[in-house]
Amino acid sequence: MKIEQNHIQDVNSKDLKSHQDHFDFLSNSLTKKGANVSAIIKKLQDFQVAIPSWALGAGGTRFGRFSFFGEPSSLEQKIEDVGVLHALTQTAGAVSLHIPWDIPQDYNAIKELASGLDIKFDAVNSNTFQDQKNANESYKYGSLSNTSEAVRQQAIQHNLDVINIGNKLGSKALTVWLADGSCFPGQNNFQTAFQNTQDSLKDIYKGVPDDWKLLIEYKPYEPNFYSTVIQDWGASLMLANECGKKAYTLVDLGHHLPNSNIEQIVSILQLKGKLGGFHFNDSKYGDDDLTVGSIKPYALFLIFNELVYGMENNPQNPDLAWMIDASHNVKDPLEDLIQSLEAIQEAYAKALLVDQNLLKAAQLDNDVVKCQEILQDAYRTDVRPLLAKARLERGGALSPIQAYRSLDVRNSLIKERGKNTVATGL
Amino acid sequence: MKIEQNHIQDVNSKDLKSHQDHFDFLSNSLTKKGANVSAIIKKLQDFQVAIPSWALGAGGTRFGRFSFFGEPSSLEQKIEDVGVLHALTQTAGAVSLHIPWDIPQDYNAIKELASGLDIKFDAVNSNTFQDQKNANESYKYGSLSNTSEAVRQQAIQHNLDVINIGNKLGSKALTVWLADGSCFPGQNNFQTAFQNTQDSLKDIYKGVPDDWKLLIEYKPYEPNFYSTVIQDWGASLMLANECGKKAYTLVDLGHHLPNSNIEQIVSILQLKGKLGGFHFNDSKYGDDDLTVGSIKPYALFLIFNELVYGMENNPQNPDLAWMIDASHNVKDPLEDLIQSLEAIQEAYAKALLVDQNLLKAAQLDNDVVKCQEILQDAYRTDVRPLLAKARLERGGALSPIQAYRSLDVRNSLIKERGKNTVATGL
Amino acid sequence: MKIEQNHIQDVNSKDLKSHQDHFDFLSNSLTKKGANVSAIIKKLQDFQVAIPSWALGAGGTRFGRFSFFGEPSSLEQKIEDVGVLHALTQTAGAVSLHIPWDIPQDYNAIKELASGLDIKFDAVNSNTFQDQKNANESYKYGSLSNTSEAVRQQAIQHNLDVINIGNKLGSKALTVWLADGSCFPGQNNFQTAFQNTQDSLKDIYKGVPDDWKLLIEYKPYEPNFYSTVIQDWGASLMLANECGKKAYTLVDLGHHLPNSNIEQIVSILQLKGKLGGFHFNDSKYGDDDLTVGSIKPYALFLIFNELVYGMENNPQNPDLAWMIDASHNVKDPLEDLIQSLEAIQEAYAKALLVDQNLLKAAQLDNDVVKCQEILQDAYRTDVRPLLAKARLERGGALSPIQAYRSLDVRNSLIKERGKNTVATGL
Amino acid sequence: MKIEQNHIQDVNSKDLKSHQDHFDFLSNSLTKKGANVSAIIKKLQDFQVAIPSWALGAGGTRFGRFSFFGEPSSLEQKIEDVGVLHALTQTAGAVSLHIPWDIPQDYNAIKELASGLDIKFDAVNSNTFQDQKNANESYKYGSLSNTSEAVRQQAIQHNLDVINIGNKLGSKALTVWLADGSCFPGQNNFQTAFQNTQDSLKDIYKGVPDDWKLLIEYKPYEPNFYSTVIQDWGASLMLANECGKKAYTLVDLGHHLPNSNIEQIVSILQLKGKLGGFHFNDSKYGDDDLTVGSIKPYALFLIFNELVYGMENNPQNPDLAWMIDASHNVKDPLEDLIQSLEAIQEAYAKALLVDQNLLKAAQLDNDVVKCQEILQDAYRTDVRPLLAKARLERGGALSPIQAYRSLDVRNSLIKERGKNTVATGL
Repeated sequence: MKIEQNHIQDVNSKDLKSHQDHFDFLSNSLTKKGANVSAIIKKLQDFQVAIPSWALGAGGTRFGRFSFFGEPSSLEQKIEDVGVLHALTQTAGAVSLHIPWDIPQDYNAIKELASGLDIKFDAVNSNTFQDQKNANESYKYGSLSNTSEAVRQQAIQHNLDVINIGNKLGSKALTVWLADGSCFPGQNNFQTAFQNTQDSLKDIYKGVPDDWKLLIEYKPYEPNFYSTVIQDWGASLMLANECGKKAYTLVDLGHHLPNSNIEQIVSILQLKGKLGGFHFNDSKYGDDDLTVGSIKPYALFLIFNELVYGMENNPQNPDLAWMIDASHNVKDPLEDLIQSLEAIQEAYAKALLVDQNLLKAAQLDNDVVKCQEILQDAYRTDVRPLLAKARLERGGALSPIQAYRSLDVRNSLIKERGKNTVATGL
Repeated sequence: MKIEQNHIQDVNSKDLKSHQDHFDFLSNSLTKKGANVSAIIKKLQDFQVAIPSWALGAGGTRFGRFSFFGEPSSLEQKIEDVGVLHALTQTAGAVSLHIPWDIPQDYNAIKELASGLDIKFDAVNSNTFQDQKNANESYKYGSLSNTSEAVRQQAIQHNLDVINIGNKLGSKALTVWLADGSCFPGQNNFQTAFQNTQDSLKDIYKGVPDDWKLLIEYKPYEPNFYSTVIQDWGASLMLANECGKKAYTLVDLGHHLPNSNIEQIVSILQLKGKLGGFHFNDSKYGDDDLTVGSIKPYALFLIFNELVYGMENNPQNPDLAWMIDASHNVKDPLEDLIQSLEAIQEAYAKALLVDQNLLKAAQLDNDVVKCQEILQDAYRTDVRPLLAKARLERGGALSPIQAYRSLDVRNSLIKERGKNTVATGL
Repeated sequence: MKIEQNHIQDVNSKDLKSHQDHFDFLSNSLTKKGANVSAIIKKLQDFQVAIPSWALGAGGTRFGRFSFFGEPSSLEQKIEDVGVLHALTQTAGAVSLHIPWDIPQDYNAIKELASGLDIKFDAVNSNTFQDQKNANESYKYGSLSNTSEAVRQQAIQHNLDVINIGNKLGSKALTVWLADGSCFPGQNNFQTAFQNTQDSLKDIYKGVPDDWKLLIEYKPYEPNFYSTVIQDWGASLMLANECGKKAYTLVDLGHHLPNSNIEQIVSILQLKGKLGGFHFNDSKYGDDDLTVGSIKPYALFLIFNELVYGMENNPQNPDLAWMIDASHNVKDPLEDLIQSLEAIQEAYAKALLVDQNLLKAAQLDNDVVKCQEILQDAYRTDVRPLLAKARLERGGALSPIQAYRSLDVRNSLIKERGKNTVATGL
Repeated sequence: MKIEQNHIQDVNSKDLKSHQDHFDFLSNSLTKKGANVSAIIKKLQDFQVAIPSWALGAGGTRFGRFSFFGEPSSLEQKIEDVGVLHALTQTAGAVSLHIPWDIPQDYNAIKELASGLDIKFDAVNSNTFQDQKNANESYKYGSLSNTSEAVRQQAIQHNLDVINIGNKLGSKALTVWLADGSCFPGQNNFQTAFQNTQDSLKDIYKGVPDDWKLLIEYKPYEPNFYSTVIQDWGASLMLANECGKKAYTLVDLGHHLPNSNIEQIVSILQLKGKLGGFHFNDSKYGDDDLTVGSIKPYALFLIFNELVYGMENNPQNPDLAWMIDASHNVKDPLEDLIQSLEAIQEAYAKALLVDQNLLKAAQLDNDVVKCQEILQDAYRTDVRPLLAKARLERGGALSPIQAYRSLDVRNSLIKERGKNTVATGL
């Protein structure tokens, strides 16, 4: 299924006048305060977030999974789903593949399909947290950190294979998330596990093309419940430094202990030129993988405030790989992703409204009240007209959720695919 | 010091036109969506929050305290400070006294002073977490829960004295916050401590006038670091039920374990008719006592969403006692309180924008996406023009912080009081 | 497979002498300090813990599951597994069935099998967190709390069916764990969800036989990640009180927010006569379902200290239903359960060593140092000889893990059942 | 006051026989299992922990402080208190001074006093979290991270002064704990604060003598409640690496977010040769500063298991500075410290019992059950006879707490010093 431009325009038409009024009023008001509205809109349009191929079907928990209807059952259908998202939001111009769940059969056909939908291939993701059928070695006790060399070699080779697949598609980064760790005290020798992981990553690093990045994710717990080899940003950074300049730390919002100050982590990594990528989601308890911005939108804004600062002030840090990494247990996955994309753009837009010069001056004065006023002034602004404008100019929907429903997308997908399809890999 | 109406009007004058434009545009837009804007403004105006007498000076931590200038050094000056807040914000129409820090010398004079500033006396607070000079018994090992009857009697009598003082001022509630608990396993017999507390509270309850409330606060830890007798809402509710129908649970936002769902607690207490009062602040780690809305404004909105629901649907629950309970370690206390009052009104206004009928319908449909859209639509609205309008109509400042600074209030206070005064009780 | 007594005796024989030496030395030393060693051993022998039928196969996480070999693939085999545990440990004299995973085909045969292994049928567990094939209604948006009456009725009827099944087996309690809750703010009306749950539980309660208990479990999060209807002990207690005197709260060690003081909860519930059952496991982060005592053994001891106190001083509280509720992701499930049983007995034995009179005296003196010394003296004692003695006298193994391995139980099971069996229900 | 050897021997005499029996039995049993008991005792005797000068008086919280009696009111008396601890425990052979609270008047006299009590001067601690009387600059908004160069210079100079003082006493390390951070989003520019801190530390580092260490502490929050500049081990390690090879990370057990795996941090720092020091205490909620081993003794054992491993296998890591950092709110400070010292020695002794070869073999086999058995076997052993033996051989008390009470030390101190003395610096 592909959404046609003119259908979106039809849906937009009845709200165009109201949108223009809101936009004009806001634009006027922001301009008076010194904001460059058109520059902000340009930045919003340039900000593209990758959709992971595994997020297009219903997710679940260890207690089970309630399936959803019309899920994509092939890589082609997954890319079409991303196409739907991108047509409506104009923000989802990339897909991030998970191997081995999404190995293309016909590379050229897949590339053409994606390109026709204006979708790029972002970072590719390896999987060494599950055993594949007929695999020689098991990852039950770890992959890159395993005490067995044979297991480590299998995991290293898998990552090299993933690079190879990504290369054929135009990806420029490999994301390594390791579940490796232990469930009980004593199970692992921490030093051996860390050293093995470091050595394995270095072997993988040798296969990383020069214009690629190696993104190293961290996570404190789950699926291991006593220790995780790469448990925090400090461990990830150490490994990235050992690997070399193409290796970076990747931050997933849900991968932190309670009460962590994530924005500070993001900021310091940028200062050191080592923030490589970002996985968006939201959470209240652990790695809950909820819709972005659904629980702690102010924290998201504070993180974007650091990201914007870094993008402007830290030339030592490269462009980042942006991705949504959520699990859709009770919502239509496509609607969930639309809400996430909206929340990301909202936080970004608000962060762009922060007057960095005023803020710096207030900081130098230790005027804590004013620092807060400046951030809150930006945050309290209703930026939805800016987001709608950015989408509209690129052919997207004024209100993507509304358009998705008006166009009856899910029912069309069910008609096309059947009701009880199950997304591959789940 | 007292702020004159005409000074506020002077400050307002230059922004009146811009305010009116913003208000009109927003009001128009909200009305189209079905909101009753004038009813909302009326509710905002009626919403008055008590300022605790101890929050007008600089706070500190166990590592020390950095003093602030021009702090009030008498009860009279504290009430004048509340008067300043109320004149500017029109939301701080009450003061909550802490005994023995704020025992009036001349009740009539104090009442006249407060009444002249349009300030009521809200809940009075007892103190059994510190030893007073010349006290016969020490609270080192607990007060109402102490194994010694003499200590318990002293603590009970103190609470009765506090009621008596409050009665003379027109207060209608006693708030009991107990630090009682233990620092080490074994120190307390949990059952004895709980039973003693229950018996002591019942003795206090006998002295609670019929038109009063007894508000029982809970807190998981600090200043005791192993156990606290009234550690959560469940314990508080049990005690309130044992005492009788004038006894209620009081919720302080900072008094919860990490990741608690506070809005659900608030909702269930209202369902049971047992939510009596509310202490506002914000926090990232523990009972950090930061400015309201400075860390998790969306959580505050969700709590207000429940409060609004309860106020409309739970006649079994009484009117609530609202108070700010924050500690001002790095800000001018008055500015900090102004920011808190603004954040409270903002969250309340946004909650009032939630279309409860639409929400209920979406909930019945299990349309999770729409439920979220409805809450986020309200939350994303920039309600500042409504708040300004509500203040303006009552003679307050369009922008209280700006007015406070324009009127150079802190310097006037320093001139009046001297630089190095210290607020009593700290 | 059934382990014969004489095989256990053979394994024990080589360590008998050493065991007797250790026991004599310890017994002597404890007796001098005033302990009644034989009474303690009697209590250890009487303490029987139920094994849940779902814990006999390998567990997993949402990221996958690594299977184990020789898992039981029928209810009969599950009961045989419990028989193995009981023969070795003499502490696992009960099984707790999960319906619909373990519905007996032939009740008499199952009862005979269990009785021949000295195994009783403890609490039965209902399942309304997953959809069963061909079910009319889905629990995706809740069961007892669902806004749809049809869903609630289905869930109520299921619970009544479970009681019926349990009744035929001699069970005396129904455990209700509800996953009901919401993943996003706004999804649920907290009050409606709570009220529906209360009404549904009352309907179930009507079907609870007079000599049965209804055990109501609580949990803060997972599988719902924003709110859970019965989120803590306070909510569970309210519901139990509403149902009536046969309804009780059930505590699962893993179902608490970070840093909760669980022993205090246990103590206060006993004071109120409302602690009905207990699920043992251990955890570092959330509901990790790790081996009992593997992470926080001192916390387990402190909990047992309260349980022992309650069993001796709270006649208002009934006998408790004890069960292990763990998930075995990286260990042989039977070995994992043996380690859990050992840890439970160890904590119980140490708690029995606490001199309650000395402790009470020290508490009355506010001698905090001595209170700690008393608890630590008990905890630091190596009680393993007591546990071994208690087992030995009943025909169990001196060292159950060692015996399990010496007798090559897992390989026998694999031979009997085949390697790649999968436990039903997982 | 000084405790005489013969007084201790008197107190010991009545328990000598029983001690010898217990020791013999245990020693025998351990020897059979392959342990080298005398080597373990030697290690316990060599393990000396510094007492910080501020821990000899009662501590408090932001809600107040309940004083204790007979507190030391001079540096001399503080050192005498450490002398008492060391005489009884034979484990407290060092003192760690806090400047400016404990600047010696007469260096030679102080050194003689300490040396006569067999006490060394361990790491010196600077204080830039409080303003000193007559200081030119305030640390209200930070010290080494402050945006003002004058403030930073004052803080740097203070640290250099502290080194100078330590040098005269024979200290070999400077511990820097920074409270620097922010209470509100926006208050600090994270990058500027980090960069300033790094530059300041490098300036201090230039003044660190070649045979000294610079120990950099980290802490996630308190007294700042939004961000802390050196918030975790990752940040501390980055700073230590920037400074040079004499700079190390210092771990304080209470300075972590909930559920942190501290033993893994300790292990990885040793692997990198960058663990410099250790502050012992215990906690349930935050930086509670409770008696070591009073809440989570198994976690302490696991940490020591890593420390022992590191001391044996990581020549790249230097000898560590060990210190207790606790706050005594409800106990006699000296008794509290005795309990802490006992808990440290207990955890160390148990860790020394772990058979590292067996553990490594089980790890290589992925025999998770056995790994746990090995750790638990060591942990479950009652090692108190080993600790008593180690003390006895050096002239200490069999049971230090009992001896302290028998010898009526506190009353002697009160007689000497008066009842209501207050320890300097508090």
